[in-house]
Amino acid sequence: MATGTSTIDFAKRLDATAEDTEALLGRLLSDDLLPDEIARPRRLMEAIRYSTLGGGKRLRPFLAVESAAVFGVDRAGALLVGAALECIHCYSLIHDDLPAMDNSDLRRGRPTLHKAYDDATAILAGDALLTLAFDIITRDEVHQDAKVRLDLNRVLARCAGLGGMVGGQMLDLAGEGRFGDREPVDVARLQQMKTGALLRYGCVAGAILGQASPEHYKALDDYGRALGEAFQIADDLLDVEGDAAALGKPAGADAALGKTTFVTQLGVDGAKQRVRDLIARADEALAPFGAKGEVLRAAARFVAERKN
Amino acid sequence: MATGTSTIDFAKRLDATAEDTEALLGRLLSDDLLPDEIARPRRLMEAIRYSTLGGGKRLRPFLAVESAAVFGVDRAGALLVGAALECIHCYSLIHDDLPAMDNSDLRRGRPTLHKAYDDATAILAGDALLTLAFDIITRDEVHQDAKVRLDLNRVLARCAGLGGMVGGQMLDLAGEGRFGDREPVDVARLQQMKTGALLRYGCVAGAILGQASPEHYKALDDYGRALGEAFQIADDLLDVEGDAAALGKPAGADAALGKTTFVTQLGVDGAKQRVRDLIARADEALAPFGAKGEVLRAAARFVAERKN
Repeated sequence: MATGTSTIDFAKRLDATAEDTEALLGRLLSDDLLPDEIARPRRLMEAIRYSTLGGGKRLRPFLAVESAAVFGVDRAGALLVGAALECIHCYSLIHDDLPAMDNSDLRRGRPTLHKAYDDATAILAGDALLTLAFDIITRDEVHQDAKVRLDLNRVLARCAGLGGMVGGQMLDLAGEGRFGDREPVDVARLQQMKTGALLRYGCVAGAILGQASPEHYKALDDYGRALGEAFQIADDLLDVEGDAAALGKPAGADAALGKTTFVTQLGVDGAKQRVRDLIARADEALAPFGAKGEVLRAAARFVAERKN
Repeated sequence: MATGTSTIDFAKRLDATAEDTEALLGRLLSDDLLPDEIARPRRLMEAIRYSTLGGGKRLRPFLAVESAAVFGVDRAGALLVGAALECIHCYSLIHDDLPAMDNSDLRRGRPTLHKAYDDATAILAGDALLTLAFDIITRDEVHQDAKVRLDLNRVLARCAGLGGMVGGQMLDLAGEGRFGDREPVDVARLQQMKTGALLRYGCVAGAILGQASPEHYKALDDYGRALGEAFQIADDLLDVEGDAAALGKPAGADAALGKTTFVTQLGVDGAKQRVRDLIARADEALAPFGAKGEVLRAAARFVAERKN
């Protein structure tokens, strides 16, 4: 590895943030959230915990924490942003898995939420998590400056909404021919919205928390874009080359749907080359931060080379 | 009528806010929202406009505008809050109408969104509207003070989420026996969450915008609670006594589901008496505002006596 962060250090840091995120989400999603027992929709809260706790690499919180660390920002605030981001990520998985959407039975090696519970509970659990994210991200503990919290909120709403994640999912379904003829797909653009926007948000959240200069904000934005695309290409490659046991879900799902992906567009070798280019671009974007950018540099490699 | 606001004046004011809200939502949901044409999920934007524009009394925006007017607050900011609130209201109708939820085919005399489009589009349209609400409510134009915008955001998240609207919908489904045996239902509590929370939000939003004293905030909160419950009892009465043409949806739906409602709990006469008590309570809550509370007093009567 070209950077000073060894693989072992990186894995440790990733695990530490995953553990902290898990503990924080556990507290945020405990019954304390609704002190009034009569008003507690117990089944819904169980369903939310089922799909939010006990799993995942917590990559988005990690990006928020490590991009904030570049600016020496308080870790507690960044973890809250990470928890909000994870609420959005989990809601999107719950809704995408629904029979009316991707109709997936398996997620992280377990039954998807609507399989373990039912469709109505899954719809409402997603709605509740999305709403909760905007509650969490505006709390005083996130940052002392109200304008910072407002910025975090606004950029999150943009990344998660029509012009971001939700819009990307819609374009993806249109590309599959779900609404008539298959609509032409600009894969890079679609994935920038569908999966890229939330990963990018993790990166720029650190810049917002750190009240970064416009140059530093742009550096993390560029880094986040490169990382987001590398993440998705790695995903498309795993769908072709990965195995179901490591993925926790069936491989080959994209091909079965006849989807346009980075791999169908660039071929396996072309896709791998593109990942290498993106890692180089991510490194370059981080240049202004010098040694402080080490962990994020390692994160780009991790995302590109992951096996699940 | 005991108040100085005649029925005609009230209807004019209600219509004026409905028109302003319609125009504002039209601008907020135009293609300008996503200037980048490639990234525009056209079908999704059409679906959102289908379910958000061209209808409704816009009661929640009206409450936001008129409660803000009590404090002499700028109407433009209150209209934006009203538009955000209407986005949340419309998303909740879209998701509630889904086959997996209430399975309704008709809404405001037109096919529900999943009937006019499809289930996947309806799920994503709801998600996009919910997200957009939190974008709109934190915009600079809402109020110059960042803390006011943060308060508006936080209270909205609480009213719309687990302890509010979404939680109430879940308790309602549990009460219908959707997850096994019918669970016992505290109707007043359930409806305070399911429909009351957003109506109440309209009322307290004015107090937040007006940076009201704790006493004045509590007055509008109490008013909003009374109005919210009166609204729901009127709804339950209409389900028994109303006709489908005026309602724009079939009557008798609650009875068909064997639902516990205010009417099954109190009887028709008991429910009507309770509405009268709630109007008196709403009047009382508004006492501190004197003549400035006139329109809101009329609103409570309107809500209780409406025919659709």
